[in-house]
Amino acid sequence: MKQVLAIYPGSFDPVTNGHLDLIERGSKLFDRLVVAVLQNLEKDPLFSVPERVEMLREVTRPWANVEVDVFDGLLVEYARRRKAQALLRGIRAISDYEYELQMAMMNRKMEPNIETVFMMPSVKYSYLSSRLVREVARLHGPLKDLVPPLVEERIRAKVT
Amino acid sequence: MKQVLAIYPGSFDPVTNGHLDLIERGSKLFDRLVVAVLQNLEKDPLFSVPERVEMLREVTRPWANVEVDVFDGLLVEYARRRKAQALLRGIRAISDYEYELQMAMMNRKMEPNIETVFMMPSVKYSYLSSRLVREVARLHGPLKDLVPPLVEERIRAKVT
Amino acid sequence: MKQVLAIYPGSFDPVTNGHLDLIERGSKLFDRLVVAVLQNLEKDPLFSVPERVEMLREVTRPWANVEVDVFDGLLVEYARRRKAQALLRGIRAISDYEYELQMAMMNRKMEPNIETVFMMPSVKYSYLSSRLVREVARLHGPLKDLVPPLVEERIRAKVT
Amino acid sequence: MKQVLAIYPGSFDPVTNGHLDLIERGSKLFDRLVVAVLQNLEKDPLFSVPERVEMLREVTRPWANVEVDVFDGLLVEYARRRKAQALLRGIRAISDYEYELQMAMMNRKMEPNIETVFMMPSVKYSYLSSRLVREVARLHGPLKDLVPPLVEERIRAKVT
Amino acid sequence: MKQVLAIYPGSFDPVTNGHLDLIERGSKLFDRLVVAVLQNLEKDPLFSVPERVEMLREVTRPWANVEVDVFDGLLVEYARRRKAQALLRGIRAISDYEYELQMAMMNRKMEPNIETVFMMPSVKYSYLSSRLVREVARLHGPLKDLVPPLVEERIRAKVT
Amino acid sequence: MKQVLAIYPGSFDPVTNGHLDLIERGSKLFDRLVVAVLQNLEKDPLFSVPERVEMLREVTRPWANVEVDVFDGLLVEYARRRKAQALLRGIRAISDYEYELQMAMMNRKMEPNIETVFMMPSVKYSYLSSRLVREVARLHGPLKDLVPPLVEERIRAKVT
Repeated sequence: MKQVLAIYPGSFDPVTNGHLDLIERGSKLFDRLVVAVLQNLEKDPLFSVPERVEMLREVTRPWANVEVDVFDGLLVEYARRRKAQALLRGIRAISDYEYELQMAMMNRKMEPNIETVFMMPSVKYSYLSSRLVREVARLHGPLKDLVPPLVEERIRAKVT
Repeated sequence: MKQVLAIYPGSFDPVTNGHLDLIERGSKLFDRLVVAVLQNLEKDPLFSVPERVEMLREVTRPWANVEVDVFDGLLVEYARRRKAQALLRGIRAISDYEYELQMAMMNRKMEPNIETVFMMPSVKYSYLSSRLVREVARLHGPLKDLVPPLVEERIRAKVT
Repeated sequence: MKQVLAIYPGSFDPVTNGHLDLIERGSKLFDRLVVAVLQNLEKDPLFSVPERVEMLREVTRPWANVEVDVFDGLLVEYARRRKAQALLRGIRAISDYEYELQMAMMNRKMEPNIETVFMMPSVKYSYLSSRLVREVARLHGPLKDLVPPLVEERIRAKVT
Repeated sequence: MKQVLAIYPGSFDPVTNGHLDLIERGSKLFDRLVVAVLQNLEKDPLFSVPERVEMLREVTRPWANVEVDVFDGLLVEYARRRKAQALLRGIRAISDYEYELQMAMMNRKMEPNIETVFMMPSVKYSYLSSRLVREVARLHGPLKDLVPPLVEERIRAKVT
Repeated sequence: MKQVLAIYPGSFDPVTNGHLDLIERGSKLFDRLVVAVLQNLEKDPLFSVPERVEMLREVTRPWANVEVDVFDGLLVEYARRRKAQALLRGIRAISDYEYELQMAMMNRKMEPNIETVFMMPSVKYSYLSSRLVREVARLHGPLKDLVPPLVEERIRAKVT
Repeated sequence: MKQVLAIYPGSFDPVTNGHLDLIERGSKLFDRLVVAVLQNLEKDPLFSVPERVEMLREVTRPWANVEVDVFDGLLVEYARRRKAQALLRGIRAISDYEYELQMAMMNRKMEPNIETVFMMPSVKYSYLSSRLVREVARLHGPLKDLVPPLVEERIRAKVT
C-alpha cells in the first residue's frame, strides 16, 4: 500500500477560494497534503508569513490530512526533507502553465524522484489570483466569493 | 488510509516511449493505475484494439499495480464503474493542454467526484506522439528511441 | 444616433447554452443582432440547416432585436449585403482565439468597413462547444445545462 | 433605440498609433466612447497624467463622439458611475489576451451588467505598445509611424 | 568560407504572397535555397504537384539562388541527400509554432546535423495561408494581394 | 558567394548551456557570429558586463568564427554598424516566442534589411534561463549541467 505525501507550495498572500478549492481536491487524492508557504522576501506583501500561515491553518481545518508549513530555499530540497513524492500545482491559464512547466522541468532535473502533478481549480475560480485579490482589496472593491470570510475580514482590517 | 485508482485513457495506436514514461510515473503516485484503450472506430488505425492491448500488457509487465483495459462510451461513466478517483493525462505542448483542459472541465461537469490530474512525460519525449510515430513508420524512418523494441518489431512487420 | 447591426455567424449544430449566453450579451450592445447559420456542406451534421434555424428561432424568441438567418458563400459579402457594421464572435480558449484572429484579419482585408468584435461567454460555458455536445449526445451522456431544454429534447429524439 | 456608451481604459503613456486606430474603430460602433486614463502611481512614467490627457484630447479631436477622461480606483466602479454598458479593449498578442480575459472575468464578477468587448487594431500596429515606444524613445530610435506627430514632438522635447 | 544550402519544404497548394515573401528573405541569408514541394496524396488538392512546381518556378525566377524541387518520404532523408544544412520554416501564429517545434525536434532526433531555422513573413501576410486562399477561391472572393497575379489567374481558370 | 554576419544579442547573466548550444548551432550556419552583450543598467545583476564578456570569450573559444562584443542603445543600430544581415534568437517556450515576435517586428520596422532568425536549443535545455540559474545559485542549488564548469566556479565564488 502506498503512502503518498504531496506538497502544495505558494506565497498565499492571501489564500483565495481558488487555493482552497485546490487544497480540497488534493486532500482527496493524496494521503497527506502539506500547504507550504514560501518564506521569501517579497517587495510589498499584504500579510506577513506568520499571518498567512495562521489564516491557512484556520481555513484548512476541515481537512484532517492537510498540514500548513513554511519553507525557504530550494523547493525540491524542502520536498526531499519532507520525503514528499509529489508537488501539487494548480493551473488555470496558459501563461501560468508555461512557467509552471519550466519550473517543473527544473525541479525534476534537480530531484528526479519527485513528480509535479497539476490539477484544475473549479472553473468559477479560473480568473482568480492573489495578485488580483490584493489589487481589488487596495481599491476597496468587493471581496465576497474571492476569499474565505475570515480572510475578507482580515483584509478589511488591513487596508482601511 | 487512501486507496486511489487512476485511469490513464487513450488510443495508444501505438504505445510510445512517452506513454510508457508517464505510466511509470503514474504507477508511483497511485495505488492502482488502469491504462484504458478507447474502443473507437478510428478511420485508419495502424493496430487493432486487441493488438494494442496485447502490446500494452507486454510492455507494462514491469509494474505490478498497472492494469490494461478497454472501454467504449463516455470516459467518466467507465471511470465511475471502475470506482476511479482520478483520470491521468500527460501534457506536453500548449495545444494539447487547451484541449485537455476543455475535456477535463466537461468531465468534471458530468462527474464532479473524479479529478483529472496532469503529469509531464520526460522532456526528451516532449515531441513524441502516436501520430508522429505512425507517420515516421509509414515513411520507413527510424523508430528506435520512439517506441519500445517490441512495438518497433510489430510496426516493421505491419508496414513493409 | 448610430444604428448598428451585428452578425453572429456559426454552424450552430446544435446551438448551445454558450451560444445563447453570447446572443443575450450581444443583443444588449447592438441595435440589431443577426444570428447567421452557415449553409455549408458539413460531412456529418447532427441537424439539418432548417432544423438548426427553427431551434434558434425558438430559443432566441425572448430577444426582440435578434433575428435568425442563413447564408452561404463569403461571410463578408453576406455582411455587406445586410449592411452590417460588425461581426460578433465568442472567444473562450486560446486556440479559438488564434484562428479567430486570422479569420478576422482576412475578413478585414476583404472588407475594411466591417469590424470583428469579440465577447466572452459566461465562464461556466468556457468548456462548451457544439462538437463536445455532439460527442456527449452520441455517447448518451447528460446534456442538461449544456443546451436549452428544447434542443436536448430534439437531440434525444435524434440519437436514440 | 439603444444608446451605448463604451469606455476604453488604459495608461496611454504615451498614446500610440495602435491606440488611435482602435479609438477610430470603436467610435464607429458605439454611440459614445470615453478614453479613460488610469490615474495610477506608475514607477517611471514618461508623461504625467495631465500631459497624457492633453495629448489624447488633441489627437482624438477628429471624432465628435470621443471624450477623454481620468479615473482612479476600480474600473468597474468608474464605468458604473458613467453608466457605461461596455469596456473596450484592444487585443494583439496571446499574452495580452490571457491577462485581458482574466481582468474581464474579474470585472464581470464585480459588475455583471458591463460587457468587455475586444477589437483588433490594424495588423500593422500589432507589435506596438507604449512600453516599446518608451524604450525606442529612450534609445533615440525612430518614432515615425509609431505615434502621432504631436506625440513624437513631445517625446523629442522630453528625452533629449 | 561556408556554403549553406537550405530547404524550404511545404505543400504550396497554392504558393501565396506570404511564401514568396519568405523565399525572398531566405534567399538573402542562404547561399542556395531549395523550395521543396511535398509529393503527398492530399485528399482534395486545388493544384496537382506538377502545376504547383511550374507556378513556383515562374514566380521564383527573380532569385538566382532559389531552386524548386519535389520530394516524397521523410523530409530529413531528402535533406540529407541534398546535403542541406538547414530547413527553413515560416512562423506566424502560435498554433503554427507549436506544431513546428514538435516537427523540428522530431527532425533533429532523426538527423542531428540539420538545423531548423524559423523566419517571419511580413506582418501584412501574417493571416495568410494556402488553406484560407483555397477557401476564398472556392467562394469566389477577391484574391488580389493574397497570391501572385499568375497564381490568381490559374485559380480563376480552375474554380469557375 | 554570400558572407553572412549574424548577431546573437542578450544579457548573458550568466551564459548558460542553452546559450552555448545555440551559439554552436549558429556558428555552423553563419559565416560569422557575434555574441553581443547588452550594456544595460539592470537592477540586480549577478555578474558585471566585463565579467560576462570574459566568461563568454572563454567558453566560446572552440568556435573560430564566433566573436564576443558589447553594445548599448538600439540593437538594430548596432547591427547596422556591424553590417550584420541577421539577428539570431533562441526560442524555447511560447511566452518567449510572443515577445520575440514583437521585438522582431519592431526591429524590422526600424531596419527592414536585417532579418531575425530563430533557432531551437537542444530540448534538454528547454527549461533553462539565466533567471532560473540565478535563482538556483542564490539558493545554493546544484548548477551542474546548467552552466559550463567555468561559470559554475565563478558563481560559487560570488554567492557564498
